Amino acid sequence: MPKSFSFRVLATDGAARRGEISTPRGTIRTPAFMPVGTAATVKAMFPEHVRAAGADIVLGNTYHLMLRPGAERIAALGGLHRFMQWPHPILTDSGGFQVMSLSALRKVTEQSVTFRSHIDGAMFDLSPERAIEIQRLLDSDIVMQLDECIRLPAADADVERAMRLSLRWAERCKRAFEGAPNGRALFGIVQGGTLPKLRRESAQALVEMDFQGYAIGGLAVGEPQDVMLQMVETSVAELPAGKPRYLMGVGEPEDILLTVERGIDMFDCVLPTRAGRHAHAYTRFGKLNLKNARHADDPHPLDEASDCPAARDYSRAYLHHLVKANEILGAMLLSWANVAYYQSLMAGMREAISAGRFADFAAETRAGWAEGE
Amino acid sequence: MPKSFSFRVLATDGAARRGEISTPRGTIRTPAFMPVGTAATVKAMFPEHVRAAGADIVLGNTYHLMLRPGAERIAALGGLHRFMQWPHPILTDSGGFQVMSLSALRKVTEQSVTFRSHIDGAMFDLSPERAIEIQRLLDSDIVMQLDECIRLPAADADVERAMRLSLRWAERCKRAFEGAPNGRALFGIVQGGTLPKLRRESAQALVEMDFQGYAIGGLAVGEPQDVMLQMVETSVAELPAGKPRYLMGVGEPEDILLTVERGIDMFDCVLPTRAGRHAHAYTRFGKLNLKNARHADDPHPLDEASDCPAARDYSRAYLHHLVKANEILGAMLLSWANVAYYQSLMAGMREAISAGRFADFAAETRAGWAEGE
Repeated sequence: MPKSFSFRVLATDGAARRGEISTPRGTIRTPAFMPVGTAATVKAMFPEHVRAAGADIVLGNTYHLMLRPGAERIAALGGLHRFMQWPHPILTDSGGFQVMSLSALRKVTEQSVTFRSHIDGAMFDLSPERAIEIQRLLDSDIVMQLDECIRLPAADADVERAMRLSLRWAERCKRAFEGAPNGRALFGIVQGGTLPKLRRESAQALVEMDFQGYAIGGLAVGEPQDVMLQMVETSVAELPAGKPRYLMGVGEPEDILLTVERGIDMFDCVLPTRAGRHAHAYTRFGKLNLKNARHADDPHPLDEASDCPAARDYSRAYLHHLVKANEILGAMLLSWANVAYYQSLMAGMREAISAGRFADFAAETRAGWAEGE
Repeated sequence: MPKSFSFRVLATDGAARRGEISTPRGTIRTPAFMPVGTAATVKAMFPEHVRAAGADIVLGNTYHLMLRPGAERIAALGGLHRFMQWPHPILTDSGGFQVMSLSALRKVTEQSVTFRSHIDGAMFDLSPERAIEIQRLLDSDIVMQLDECIRLPAADADVERAMRLSLRWAERCKRAFEGAPNGRALFGIVQGGTLPKLRRESAQALVEMDFQGYAIGGLAVGEPQDVMLQMVETSVAELPAGKPRYLMGVGEPEDILLTVERGIDMFDCVLPTRAGRHAHAYTRFGKLNLKNARHADDPHPLDEASDCPAARDYSRAYLHHLVKANEILGAMLLSWANVAYYQSLMAGMREAISAGRFADFAAETRAGWAEGE
């Protein structure tokens, strides 16, 4: 295992890149999809199945973990990896997004954000320094800066103010991160809403500060897809080729195809597991609703060519039965099958980029989805 | 694999027996605990983990499966084993108990029981012949006669009437079962409430009919433990040594110890999985409530000497966190650990019987439970 954090591009096809992030806890093949382990668990999955499905890295949520069970407690128990039995790389977000979307009574000042826990109403204070401290206590491999995520739509002036504050917080996070063990990385987050000018300014300022990777935040929050793509293109244009690019919170397989094509290397999203808990399967043949009565007598599995036992060994009729009966095994099998499908999609993209046939792969993939409809 | 159903006693220690049931789908080591797969799933568990935990056989509920997804549908899909990905032996109950405990508007006649589904209110009719037909459609390995389970306490005359009706239904089930494929077995069910005289009459009449095994039904429904034990002793005294004896719906580990000691070979109960979904763990150290705050910082697993990954690899602190956060993984891990503990308890009893030290094993086991309190 390497002692340091590094990224190299192994192949490109247009703007799409295949690469490899090396960390002391393992290699992350990019484009990478990170299953979300919000509360120290990728919901309804055993960690060994997440791994076997092909995931090199999972995401943990600083916001959830700081509230429950608490970062100090996890540190005392040996860190997040041991706590959740995932010895491979973990990226933690900074909590900024969930403070905006989940907490009550939040108040943002230059110094920090204070908010009320959505679990028990307790008051918390999250500064850039504390966000880094929490992620260090968790012993995260890839640490995210604290940013201010504002709800869209918002006035341009508010978007600009939040972006500038996020830049100042980026600097404070960078200082707070100094002295982290070798091999841990800190990523900056490009903000700026849907305003190209602000996105460029944010990206340029962050690149000036020199992070080990760059995320694009504040997208996939309801804006039209073409706006999201334009913001990705605008941001990516400012980012260095030699550093990984992470599009936060994305997304649907189609969005992943479209943004890998535009040079994104990393993704996270709750969709595969959330959909799995709500009777939906992502497959080569598109998205299926297993609650639908047309599956009730179908002896075929989700995908008989899949390597994933959940997708290969159980009939659609059985999955339909499980979800109709609200059986936990339904959520378990569909979450597993979905995470495995996402990982196989990423593996397919990586291969296609190396072979210089990303466009063909994307077309074939979309044709498969259409076939199932 | 044998083509027929057979049972042999391998060792005895007092009234306790170690034995082996051979079936075309596999061997069942007795004393055996059958995890309950009510709706074609041992709740919150993958079938391969049920198997790896040491289960040779699971139980399926005729009542639930006839209502949803329907016996004819399961038959068209290749039978219950294929449907739920459990290629090993399955015992199905007859539906009698759940008709009593779950359905509405039930009406018992000489011919059958009619009742309203608790799921959608549809009317169903279950006769002895239909109960056998359903279990044949499911392709069950061990089929149970239909019986009338009455709620206790009940007037002696009502208990007697239900017991006599169950005997007449046993005869009809036996006729209906004629022509079943080789290797499938039909068990009669001893009824008679808490009245020794009725229990004896029921057992004697069933033995006269000559079933391949005998269950003791209508116990562990709220009566005092000493009454339950007395009914078990009374019933077992009438049953032939060469046939397996199954105590339905039992139970707590202590009840299993006490009734293996009295000659019982088979058990089923929802406890290990139900407790697992409600934050409770059965362990060598007794029953633990993982919701209890004393586990919040405990780095130790449930049992570091366990072969079960769920009991061995995850800290009590993590399990506490999962159950507090209502994470599905909490139910998954605790159900798995509980089923594994029950199976290890059965394995321990089997070994102890062979070694002629069942009483010592029981004492050691109880001392372990007391230690954890």
